[in-house]
Amino acid sequence: MKIKIIVPVATDDFNQGIKEEVERVKAPDCTINIENLNSGPLSIESRYDAFLAGPDIVRIALEAENQGFDGIFIDCFGDPQVSVVREIVNIPVIGGFGAALMTANMIARKYSIISVLDRVVAMNMSLAREYGIAGNIASMPVIDMPVKDLKDKETLTKRLVEVSLTAIEQQDAQAIILGCTGMMDVAKRVEKILAEEGKPAPVIDPATTAIGFLQSLIRNNLSQSRLTYYKHEDFPDNSGKPKNF
Amino acid sequence: MKIKIIVPVATDDFNQGIKEEVERVKAPDCTINIENLNSGPLSIESRYDAFLAGPDIVRIALEAENQGFDGIFIDCFGDPQVSVVREIVNIPVIGGFGAALMTANMIARKYSIISVLDRVVAMNMSLAREYGIAGNIASMPVIDMPVKDLKDKETLTKRLVEVSLTAIEQQDAQAIILGCTGMMDVAKRVEKILAEEGKPAPVIDPATTAIGFLQSLIRNNLSQSRLTYYKHEDFPDNSGKPKNF
Amino acid sequence: MKIKIIVPVATDDFNQGIKEEVERVKAPDCTINIENLNSGPLSIESRYDAFLAGPDIVRIALEAENQGFDGIFIDCFGDPQVSVVREIVNIPVIGGFGAALMTANMIARKYSIISVLDRVVAMNMSLAREYGIAGNIASMPVIDMPVKDLKDKETLTKRLVEVSLTAIEQQDAQAIILGCTGMMDVAKRVEKILAEEGKPAPVIDPATTAIGFLQSLIRNNLSQSRLTYYKHEDFPDNSGKPKNF
Amino acid sequence: MKIKIIVPVATDDFNQGIKEEVERVKAPDCTINIENLNSGPLSIESRYDAFLAGPDIVRIALEAENQGFDGIFIDCFGDPQVSVVREIVNIPVIGGFGAALMTANMIARKYSIISVLDRVVAMNMSLAREYGIAGNIASMPVIDMPVKDLKDKETLTKRLVEVSLTAIEQQDAQAIILGCTGMMDVAKRVEKILAEEGKPAPVIDPATTAIGFLQSLIRNNLSQSRLTYYKHEDFPDNSGKPKNF
Amino acid sequence: MKIKIIVPVATDDFNQGIKEEVERVKAPDCTINIENLNSGPLSIESRYDAFLAGPDIVRIALEAENQGFDGIFIDCFGDPQVSVVREIVNIPVIGGFGAALMTANMIARKYSIISVLDRVVAMNMSLAREYGIAGNIASMPVIDMPVKDLKDKETLTKRLVEVSLTAIEQQDAQAIILGCTGMMDVAKRVEKILAEEGKPAPVIDPATTAIGFLQSLIRNNLSQSRLTYYKHEDFPDNSGKPKNF
Amino acid sequence: MKIKIIVPVATDDFNQGIKEEVERVKAPDCTINIENLNSGPLSIESRYDAFLAGPDIVRIALEAENQGFDGIFIDCFGDPQVSVVREIVNIPVIGGFGAALMTANMIARKYSIISVLDRVVAMNMSLAREYGIAGNIASMPVIDMPVKDLKDKETLTKRLVEVSLTAIEQQDAQAIILGCTGMMDVAKRVEKILAEEGKPAPVIDPATTAIGFLQSLIRNNLSQSRLTYYKHEDFPDNSGKPKNF
Repeated sequence: MKIKIIVPVATDDFNQGIKEEVERVKAPDCTINIENLNSGPLSIESRYDAFLAGPDIVRIALEAENQGFDGIFIDCFGDPQVSVVREIVNIPVIGGFGAALMTANMIARKYSIISVLDRVVAMNMSLAREYGIAGNIASMPVIDMPVKDLKDKETLTKRLVEVSLTAIEQQDAQAIILGCTGMMDVAKRVEKILAEEGKPAPVIDPATTAIGFLQSLIRNNLSQSRLTYYKHEDFPDNSGKPKNF
Repeated sequence: MKIKIIVPVATDDFNQGIKEEVERVKAPDCTINIENLNSGPLSIESRYDAFLAGPDIVRIALEAENQGFDGIFIDCFGDPQVSVVREIVNIPVIGGFGAALMTANMIARKYSIISVLDRVVAMNMSLAREYGIAGNIASMPVIDMPVKDLKDKETLTKRLVEVSLTAIEQQDAQAIILGCTGMMDVAKRVEKILAEEGKPAPVIDPATTAIGFLQSLIRNNLSQSRLTYYKHEDFPDNSGKPKNF
Repeated sequence: MKIKIIVPVATDDFNQGIKEEVERVKAPDCTINIENLNSGPLSIESRYDAFLAGPDIVRIALEAENQGFDGIFIDCFGDPQVSVVREIVNIPVIGGFGAALMTANMIARKYSIISVLDRVVAMNMSLAREYGIAGNIASMPVIDMPVKDLKDKETLTKRLVEVSLTAIEQQDAQAIILGCTGMMDVAKRVEKILAEEGKPAPVIDPATTAIGFLQSLIRNNLSQSRLTYYKHEDFPDNSGKPKNF
Repeated sequence: MKIKIIVPVATDDFNQGIKEEVERVKAPDCTINIENLNSGPLSIESRYDAFLAGPDIVRIALEAENQGFDGIFIDCFGDPQVSVVREIVNIPVIGGFGAALMTANMIARKYSIISVLDRVVAMNMSLAREYGIAGNIASMPVIDMPVKDLKDKETLTKRLVEVSLTAIEQQDAQAIILGCTGMMDVAKRVEKILAEEGKPAPVIDPATTAIGFLQSLIRNNLSQSRLTYYKHEDFPDNSGKPKNF
Repeated sequence: MKIKIIVPVATDDFNQGIKEEVERVKAPDCTINIENLNSGPLSIESRYDAFLAGPDIVRIALEAENQGFDGIFIDCFGDPQVSVVREIVNIPVIGGFGAALMTANMIARKYSIISVLDRVVAMNMSLAREYGIAGNIASMPVIDMPVKDLKDKETLTKRLVEVSLTAIEQQDAQAIILGCTGMMDVAKRVEKILAEEGKPAPVIDPATTAIGFLQSLIRNNLSQSRLTYYKHEDFPDNSGKPKNF
Repeated sequence: MKIKIIVPVATDDFNQGIKEEVERVKAPDCTINIENLNSGPLSIESRYDAFLAGPDIVRIALEAENQGFDGIFIDCFGDPQVSVVREIVNIPVIGGFGAALMTANMIARKYSIISVLDRVVAMNMSLAREYGIAGNIASMPVIDMPVKDLKDKETLTKRLVEVSLTAIEQQDAQAIILGCTGMMDVAKRVEKILAEEGKPAPVIDPATTAIGFLQSLIRNNLSQSRLTYYKHEDFPDNSGKPKNF
C-alpha cells in the first residue's frame, strides 16, 4: 500500500517531523511519500491561503494517482481542496479535519478543537457543519500561536494544556482535537499532563489519525462517494486542463 | 451605488439575460456592470469548475474594489469562491445561494431548492449546512437539465412546475428556490402556474434577490464580518500576489 | 414604492428617530409613512404587550393595503403579530427579527442578539427557533435597560460595547444584532468602537435592515408564502370583522 | 383540585363531547369546568382565528385564577394564546400541543401529527420548533376535513387510519398524534385498527393527555417558568387593563 | 390504579423517603408499591452499575405485570434498563429522566440538569440526545456529591442553589432539573430560595413528576409504542428465560 | 497487535465467515481472535437480546484485557454493551455502528442504514442520535430478512440492491451502510451492481470497517475517553464482581 502525503505549503520545513510522526502509525506493508508544493503559501491560515495552494495540490494529486498511489492525505487540518481533489481522482483523499473528528466521535461524545489563531476558527466551524457534527463540538478555543511558532514544543504544550483544561472544566469537552497538523509530536505529552491533572481526555493528532483512517479505507477498498463528489467528466488525459478550459 | 456582477464563466452568453433580469430589481440610483472570465469553465456544475473559475474571479473582484464598486455579486447559485473573495476585499460580496435562501427563510418556513442535475445536489446541501439552515430544506429535487439547455424556457418551465408540485405536495415545501442563476426569467411564470394549480408558493430567483439583498447591505453600510472572514494580511498592493507566494 | 411603518406603541415618541434612520437606507423612488397605535402599550417587552398592540396593528395593516402601500414593516424586534397580519394582507409584511437575522446570517456564521432586558430573551429565542436558525446564535446577552431609557445614547453605546465584547471574546460571536428597534442611531458607533478594540464585528440595526429587505422583496415582487400563511377566507370586505365573528 | 377548560370558540357544540372525554382521565379528587368564548371564531384554523379568540381567552383565564382554579387547559391543539396567558396568571396553563407531544416523546422516538387541513400544518410545525422537538416529527399529514366535519366519526376514523398507516410505513412514525382537539373519541378506535393492521402505534388524544398532564403539574405544584414567561408587571388588580393601556 | 416503583439498588435505605415524596403526588385512587433489588449495586453512578442492576430489574418488572400492576416507575434518573423492560412488559414503564425532561419542556424552553458527579454527565447527555431534546439543555453542572451523601439535605440544598444560580445567570436556564432521584425532598426548598434570589425557576423532582406522568399514561390507557419497543417474541411464559437462551 | 472479536451470540455459525472477511482488511502485524458467548441469544434483534448477551460479553472483555489483547470489536451492528464494556477495560472497544457510520461520514454527507427487520430500526436511530449524526441519515429502510436467513447471499444481495436504489433515488442517500454484521461478503457485490445501475454509492460493511478503525485506534494509542466512560472504581481484581455487589 502506497500513500501520498501532500504537505500543502511551499516549504519542506515540516517534512521531517511529519515523517517521524506517521512512521509510528503505519503498518509494515505501507509506504509513505511526502511532497510539498512548488509554489504556494508557507502556511495555511486563511481561505485565501488554501486557494493559493490549490493548483499545486491538484497537480500533485493527479500525478499521484497516475503513479499508482493508493490514497492521498492532504496534510492540513482545514481539508484544503479535499472536495475538489475528490472529484478528479478515484483513490481515496482525506484531510486532517475529517480524520480527527471521526476518530473523536468514535471515542467521545463532545470534544473541543484547539486552533492556532482566531482567524481560522470560523473556517473550522464551517467544516464541522459540513460534516454534520457541529452539535458535538464543545468549544473551539485558540492558543494564539501562528503556525510558524509551533516548533517551540514547550510553549505549545503549555498553551495546549491550559486551553484543554478550560475546555474540559467549563465546556464539558471529553476529548481534545489538535486543530492544526503542525502541532506535531505533542499529543501524547498533553494527554499525559491532562491525566495527571485528573482530566483524562484523549488528545487526537489529525495527521496520525489520518494515516490510520486512510489505511482503513484502502484496506476496505473504499473511496469518496461518487454521488457526493461526481467525477469531473472533462479529464480525458488527466492533464488538469479540462476540455472546456 | 455601483454593483459589479461577476458571471463566473468564460462566455458572455448569459449576460444579456442577466442584464434584463437585474434591471427590473435595481433602484434608480444603482448602476450595474457585468463581467465574465477571460478563461475558465463554460458553466459551473462541479467543485472543480468553481476551482477553475477561481483565479479570474479573484482578479476581477480585486479590480472592482479598486475601481470603486460598492458591492460584488458572483452570479452563480453555488457561491463559488465567495468565501475566498470575502477575505481579500472590503466591499460586500455575495453569491446566489445566500441571497435566495435568506429571502426564502424570510417569507416561508420550509422550502425546496431545485437543481439542474444530481451532480450539484450535494454541493448545495453543503452550502445549506454552512449557512446553518439545512433543517429548513424540504427537499432538493432536480430537473435533470444541464445549464447549457436552460435557454429552452418552455421545457424549463414545465420541468420546474413538475418538481415544484411534488415538493409542495409530498415534502411540505412552502416556497421554491430556483437553484441555478441560469434559470432566468421563469420564476414569475412558474409561480403563476403553481398558484393556478392551487399551490401558491413564492418562486425565488437567486440573481434578482441577490441584487436586492446587495443593495440593502450597501445602503446599510454592512459587509462580511471580519471575524468570520479575516482580512488576508499579505496584500500590500492588492496585486493578487501575497508576499509569501 | 410606498412602505408603511407601523410603530406598534401608543406614542409617537420614537417616530422622528425612526424617520431619520430609515431615510438613510431607502432608495430615491421609495416613500415611507410612519403610523402609531391609537391605543396599546408604550413599549413591547412581553408577549402580553404584543397581544395588547394586536387590534390596532391589524387595523392599520388592513388600511395600509387598501391605501395602496406596497409593503409593511412592523417596527419592533419581536415581530409582534407579523404572523397574524401575513394571513390577512397580500403585500409583504416583515418585522425586525427576520430582517436582522437574515442579514446577519448572510455576512457571518454565528452572531449574538443583544436584548434590553432578561424578560424578552426567551421570546427572542422562540423566534430564532421558528426561523430555524437557533443553532447560529452565539449568545443572547442583555444590557439591562428598559426601552424607555434607550434615548440615553451614551449609556446605551457603552453597555452595547461591553456585552458585545464579551459575546465576541467568550461565545465566538462574529456579528452583533441590536435586539430592539429602539436602539436607534448607535449601530455604526458601536461597530466603530468594536473595530478599534480589535474586534471588527458588523453591528446590525433591525429597523434599517428591515427597510432594506422590504425594498428587495417589493422589487422582486415577492410576499409571504400562502402555503405558510394561508389567506384568511372570512374577509369579504377587509373590515377586520370576519363573517363568523 | 379544580381545572378550568377554556374551549376557545364561540359555541358550546363541543362541550358535551369534551366533558365525556375528560371525565375518563380525571382523578376522583379533580373537578373540571368547561367554558366557551362569548365572542370569537367557531373554530381555530388560522393564526387570525387565534387572534380573534384572544380577548375572551385572556378574560376567562384571569377570572379562573381569581375564582381559585388550580390550572387551565386551553382546549385547542394549536396552543392559542397559551404564551400570553402564562404571563398573566400564576396557575399552570397548557394547550393541547405540548401535552400531546410531551406524551408522545415519552413513549416513542418519532411520531406524526395528523392535522385537519393543509392550512394549519405550518402553524403546527412552528410549535414543534418552539418546543425544540421538530427533529422528532416523522411527518405532518392531513385528513383534509375541516373542524366542523369532525363529528362524522366514521369518516374521521377512516381517514385517520389511512394517513396513519402511510406515516408508519413510509416515514417511520412510531406513534400517532391527533392534531386537533376536535378529533374526540376516536383515538382508541384508530389505535385498535392500526394494531389489527400489524402497526401497533399508540394514538394520542391531545385533550385527554392535557388533563392528565395538568393534574401532574398541579400535584407537583409546578407552573410555567417565570424566567420563560415573566409576569406582566402592570396588573395590579388583574383587571386585564394594564396601567399603560 | 396500582403502580410499582422499582428502586434499582440492593438496599432499602431510600424507600421511606421515596414513599413520603410520592404520597404527596398520587391521586386518591392510586396505590404504590416500592421494591428493591435482591442483589445489585448500592447506587447507580455508571453504566456498569445499571448493567449490574439489570437482572433484578427485569425479574421484578415481569412479576409486577403478572401481579396486575398498571405501570412501573424505575426510580432512577438514568432510566436504567427502561428500554429493555419496555420490550418485555405491556404496561407502561418510565424512568426519571423522561418524566423530568418532558415536564421541564412543558413549562420552560431551556433548562439545566444538575448531576451528582462528573462521571454521570455524559450518560445524561446521551439520554437527552435519545429523547431528541439535547438542544434544549442549557447546561449540565454537577454538585460533586456522591449519591450516598445526599441525605445531608443542608449541604445538598446549598450546592443545588449555587449551581442553579450559575446555570440561570450564565447559561440562560429557565428551569432546574434535579438529575438524581436521590435528591429527595429539596426541590421546593431550592425553588423558594431561587425565587428569593430573584431567579424564579421551577425546580423539577424526577421521582414526583414520574409518578404524575405515569398516572396520566395509565388514565389515558397509553403505553410504550410497540413500533419503538417491539415485544420480545420468545416469552411464552414470562419466565425471563427466552426459548433460545 | 492482537484484536479480540467478540461475536455476541451463543453459536459459532458465523465465525468462519467473519474470519474470512476480516483477514482481508488486517495488516500483516495484526492477529485476530474470535470468541462466542457460552450462553446467550442466537442473534441480536432486540434490546432484550443485547441484555441477555451482556454477562458473557463483559466476561470475555475482561479476560481479553487480562490476556494482553490490544483492542476489542464487539461484532454486532447495534454496539451491544459497548458503553458498559468501555467503563471496565482500558483497551479500545468498538462495535459495528460507530465504525460504519464514522467511515460513511468521511466519504459521503448523507447515507442510509439498511436494517434486517423493522424491529431494529428504532434501536439504530437511537444510536445515530447518541453519536450526534442523526441529521446525516438519509433513510433507514429494511430488507425484511431475519439474521438467520442472511446466509442466502443471492436473496440478500437482491434485496440490498432494491432498497439501496430506492434510498439513493428517493432519499438522496450518497452511501449505503449494511446495518447488520451478519450481511457478510456482499458489500462489494452490491456496490458493483449499484455502479452498473448508474448509482455509484460506496457500500460499507460494519465488520471490516471496524477492524480497520480499531487498528487505527491501536496504532494511534487511543482509547475511549475516560471523561465519557469513567472507569468503574470497584474492580480491584477485574473479577466482574465489584465490591458492592
